[in-house]
Amino acid sequence: MGSDLAPRSEVEGAVLAAREHGVEVLLVGREELIRKELAQHDISGLPVRVVHASEVVTMKDAGARAFRRKRDSSIRVGAQLVRDGKADGLISAGNTGAVGVAVKLLWGGLEGVDRPALAGIFPTSDGRPSVMLDIGASVDSKPQHLEQFAVMGEIFYRVILGGEKPRVGLLSNGTEDVKGNELTREAHQLLKALDINFVGNVEGRDLYNGRVDVIVCDGFIGNVALKISEGLVETFGTLLKEALSSDLSSIVGSVLVRRALKLFKKRLDYSEYGGVPMLGVRGGCIICHGSSNGIAIKNAIRLAGDFSDRRVNEKIEAELAGVHAPEPKSEAGGEPRPWAGK
Amino acid sequence: MGSDLAPRSEVEGAVLAAREHGVEVLLVGREELIRKELAQHDISGLPVRVVHASEVVTMKDAGARAFRRKRDSSIRVGAQLVRDGKADGLISAGNTGAVGVAVKLLWGGLEGVDRPALAGIFPTSDGRPSVMLDIGASVDSKPQHLEQFAVMGEIFYRVILGGEKPRVGLLSNGTEDVKGNELTREAHQLLKALDINFVGNVEGRDLYNGRVDVIVCDGFIGNVALKISEGLVETFGTLLKEALSSDLSSIVGSVLVRRALKLFKKRLDYSEYGGVPMLGVRGGCIICHGSSNGIAIKNAIRLAGDFSDRRVNEKIEAELAGVHAPEPKSEAGGEPRPWAGK
Repeated sequence: MGSDLAPRSEVEGAVLAAREHGVEVLLVGREELIRKELAQHDISGLPVRVVHASEVVTMKDAGARAFRRKRDSSIRVGAQLVRDGKADGLISAGNTGAVGVAVKLLWGGLEGVDRPALAGIFPTSDGRPSVMLDIGASVDSKPQHLEQFAVMGEIFYRVILGGEKPRVGLLSNGTEDVKGNELTREAHQLLKALDINFVGNVEGRDLYNGRVDVIVCDGFIGNVALKISEGLVETFGTLLKEALSSDLSSIVGSVLVRRALKLFKKRLDYSEYGGVPMLGVRGGCIICHGSSNGIAIKNAIRLAGDFSDRRVNEKIEAELAGVHAPEPKSEAGGEPRPWAGK
Repeated sequence: MGSDLAPRSEVEGAVLAAREHGVEVLLVGREELIRKELAQHDISGLPVRVVHASEVVTMKDAGARAFRRKRDSSIRVGAQLVRDGKADGLISAGNTGAVGVAVKLLWGGLEGVDRPALAGIFPTSDGRPSVMLDIGASVDSKPQHLEQFAVMGEIFYRVILGGEKPRVGLLSNGTEDVKGNELTREAHQLLKALDINFVGNVEGRDLYNGRVDVIVCDGFIGNVALKISEGLVETFGTLLKEALSSDLSSIVGSVLVRRALKLFKKRLDYSEYGGVPMLGVRGGCIICHGSSNGIAIKNAIRLAGDFSDRRVNEKIEAELAGVHAPEPKSEAGGEPRPWAGK
C-alpha cells in the first residue's frame, strides 16, 4: 500500500514477478483495493495471493508511532508474515522509517550486527553498479558499526550483484590514510584488519566513477550523498534545457536530453534493482522508491528472492562471527591470543 | 604558482582584473616565469607588479610541512604581504591545505571565530547561487562552530552575492526539526536563536534547487557533497553520451550535450565567482580550482576586492560580538542575564 500509485505498482510488479520469475507473491493490504487492481491482469495459474491488512501507514506517520498504533497495517502484517516463516522477504515502497521500526522490532538484528544499514545501489560510468551503505538507516555511527557495514556490504555485493573480490572503500574527505574525521580514522584501522579487499579511503567522486564497488559511510552522510545526487540530477536537467534553449537545434536537443535524463533518473531511483536492501535484520527487506512503477517492484521482488535463496544473512552472520572471534590455540598450546581487530 | 597551467592563468587573470576592474595586482612567485608570461600581454599603464618568491608548494606537499620548510614559497610570501598590510587579499589556485595553514598561522582568526570555513558557491535551478559552508576547511565540528559558520555565511551572502535576508538552512537527513545527528540537533537550537533568517533543516537536494541561500554543515560532509557533485556531473556526461549514441541524431545531440555539460561544469568549478572564500581568517582569502583559467582568476581577484572593500570581516566580527554577549541590564537594574544562545 506504499507506492505513490498504490496498489497499482505493487500489483503489477507482483504479477510480473510471478509470471517472469515464478516467484510466489503475497500482496498485503486492503483486500478490495488489491482485488480491483488484480482484475486488470490475467493471473490464472499465477502464484499471487492476497493477505488482508486493514490499515495503511502514510508518509506522515512517525515510524515508532505507526508501529504501535496501526497494528493491522500492511507493513506490520507483512513483517509478521516473514517473522512467522510464511514469507521469505518483505518489499515496501512506503514509509521507510515505519518499515525500519517494524522489521527491527519484529525480526531483530543478525548476530554480530548492532545496527541495520540501507545499501543504496548507484550507477557508475563503467557500467557496474556501486553500493553505498548506510544511506540513512541510522546516524551517529561508531567505528564498529562501519566495520559491520563493510562486512555486510561486501557480502551483498559479492553474492547478489556478483564479482569475485569487490573493492571496499571508506568514504572520506581525501584518499590519504590520514584524511578523515575521528570516526573514519578509527574505522580505517578496523577495515584494514578485515578479510576483504579494502582499498582504503575514497572520495565522494568515487561513488560514480567505478573506482570502488562498496562505499562505507555513516547514515547521515549517505543520506546527504543520495539526496545531493537526486537534487543535482534535477537541477542539471533544468540547466541543460536552458543551455539548449538558446540554441538553434533546441527542439531536437531537448527531446534527446529529456530522454537521457529520464534514463539516468531511473537508474538513480534504483529501478534496475527495484529497491535497496536493509542489511543486518533477520530477514530480507527491500525498500523501494515511492515513485516505483511495476517494473521496479518486479525487480525488487526478484532481489528479495535472490537475497533469500543465496542466504545472504547466513553468510553475514558467519563472516561476522569470525571477525572478532578469538584465534584458535596453536598446537603448542599456550595462552589464547587477544581478540583480533579490536 | 598554483594552477595547473601556472603561471599562465594567474598572469592572464591579473592582467584582465587590472584592465577591467582597475584592481592593483601583485603577482607572487618565480619572477622569470611570471615575466615571461607577462610578455605575452600589453600591460603598459596597468597596475600589475611582480613580487619574487623562489619556492613553489606542490599538490603533494603537506600543508604544515610546506609552511615550515618552504619559507620563501609564493603562498607564504603572498600571505605575508596581506599580514603586513601590503595587500588586501590573497588568491591561490594551489594547494588548499597549504594556503589554509599559511593564513591561519600568519593572519590568525577573527574575533569570535574558532575555525575557518570554506564557503562553496553552487549553481541552482532558479538562477541564484547557493552557498554551502564548510566544504572542507576542517572536520569534527562542534555545534558552536556551525553557529559561527551560519553567521559568516549569512554575511558573506548578503554583502557579496546580494539579497536582503538570505535564507539559512542546516544540512540534515530530513527537514523535520527532530531529524539529524547529535551535532545538527544541538546546532539547530543555536541557529534558531540567531538573528538571521533561519529556515530550519534542509536536505541534500536543497543545495541545487534554490529553496535556500546558505547551507551550514560540517567540513567533512561539505567536502563529500562537493565531490559527489563533481563526480556525478562527470558520470552523467558519460551516461548521456551513451544514451545518445544509440540514437539517430547522436552527432547533433552529443555536440549539444557536450557544450551544456561544459557550461555546467564551469559553474560547478565556481568560475563565475572565480573561487571560494575562506571565511573566519583575518584577511580575504580566495581559493581557486587548480583548473582555473584566466577568467576564473580575474573573477577571484574581483571577489577578493569586493571582500575587502565591503568589509566582510569587520561585519562578521561585529555580528559575532553580539551573538553571545551578555544582554544589557534592564533599566530597573538587577542581575545580568545569562549569555544568550548557550
